[in-house]
Amino acid sequence: MTTQRKPRGPYRKGIQRREQILDAALEVFSRHGDRGSSLQEIADRVGLSLPGLLHYFGSREELLLAVIERRDVLDTESRTVKEEAEVRSPGEAVVRTVRHNMEQPGLVKLFVALSAAATEPAHHAHGFFTDRYRDLVLTIRKGLESGQENGEIRADANAEHMARLLLAISDGLQIQWLMDPSVDMAAIVETFNLLCQAAPDRESEPGR
Amino acid sequence: MTTQRKPRGPYRKGIQRREQILDAALEVFSRHGDRGSSLQEIADRVGLSLPGLLHYFGSREELLLAVIERRDVLDTESRTVKEEAEVRSPGEAVVRTVRHNMEQPGLVKLFVALSAAATEPAHHAHGFFTDRYRDLVLTIRKGLESGQENGEIRADANAEHMARLLLAISDGLQIQWLMDPSVDMAAIVETFNLLCQAAPDRESEPGR
Repeated sequence: MTTQRKPRGPYRKGIQRREQILDAALEVFSRHGDRGSSLQEIADRVGLSLPGLLHYFGSREELLLAVIERRDVLDTESRTVKEEAEVRSPGEAVVRTVRHNMEQPGLVKLFVALSAAATEPAHHAHGFFTDRYRDLVLTIRKGLESGQENGEIRADANAEHMARLLLAISDGLQIQWLMDPSVDMAAIVETFNLLCQAAPDRESEPGR
Repeated sequence: MTTQRKPRGPYRKGIQRREQILDAALEVFSRHGDRGSSLQEIADRVGLSLPGLLHYFGSREELLLAVIERRDVLDTESRTVKEEAEVRSPGEAVVRTVRHNMEQPGLVKLFVALSAAATEPAHHAHGFFTDRYRDLVLTIRKGLESGQENGEIRADANAEHMARLLLAISDGLQIQWLMDPSVDMAAIVETFNLLCQAAPDRESEPGR
């Protein structure tokens, strides 16, 4: 989906237009979710007609998927170097993402609906989501294994299982939170991180 | 939905017919999931016409919800006294349910789709799911608190959080499993149960 060389001319203009639409869609969806959002509102925001908008994304479904992909990219890009350095474990990164998500209920709704629908192999987003889970499990597992090596994460629990637990928790808590907005997703993920910590010998740890 | 007194006459016959339809629906959905199942197939199995079937459930949506409710009931009823005694913790009960679910991919698909859609407050199953999560959190929390009191479950982690984690894990792993059937949901829940165990002093425990 991305290109290594800098595109020029009309092609580049098309990419800029696409990003403009995505930014507008992200904002509209983050407030209203899938059901409450109209493509017309997004088209209006970027000064396009509805057919003009569909020229760039083909269908509502394709736009929804592109919004979720863009959310992932923004979530990674928005981390400053300082934040990256502060996030010492995959679990802490998930807390940070979850806290961010709690400000965007519309996008959470969209993600929940799309990931559920994409479990069908024939769904247009099936490939995206299977790749997404496979890649995330791998990245998180590696982070946890480093934590196991340096003594921060329990070594008696399977790292791939803990990675899949973190992802499942992040997905499953979204449903509980949408059902009951008083559920503090971030605090609950922090409890999971506590469970994954290596055998506490807190008295001897400095700064606790 | 249930009645205390034993119903008689035509009313009772209606209930029996309803249960017959539900059993057929449960079987059809457990094999094909929502998308692959037709109401006609279910109607055929119980010797009803399609309008005859809809007389009992009004719509496909109502039948889907009734199937999920019935799955919950069957899951509880199917536990023998012996099993109830063997399941010493809420975490073990979840392992058991998850293992059972892995034999019914169609019902898992149905549950994932319905719970996602029901996050919308206007959805007809919203009330059922909000009640379901609230009740399950309460039951699991109590079980975990007993475990904390008798020293089996870690006392340094919030019991309500652990209850919500268990539910989130059970929901979230279903999505990962539907995307990749090689994911061993039961083994992963067992890893979570290990994380929740009270400080291991395994050498002194008999039988380990």
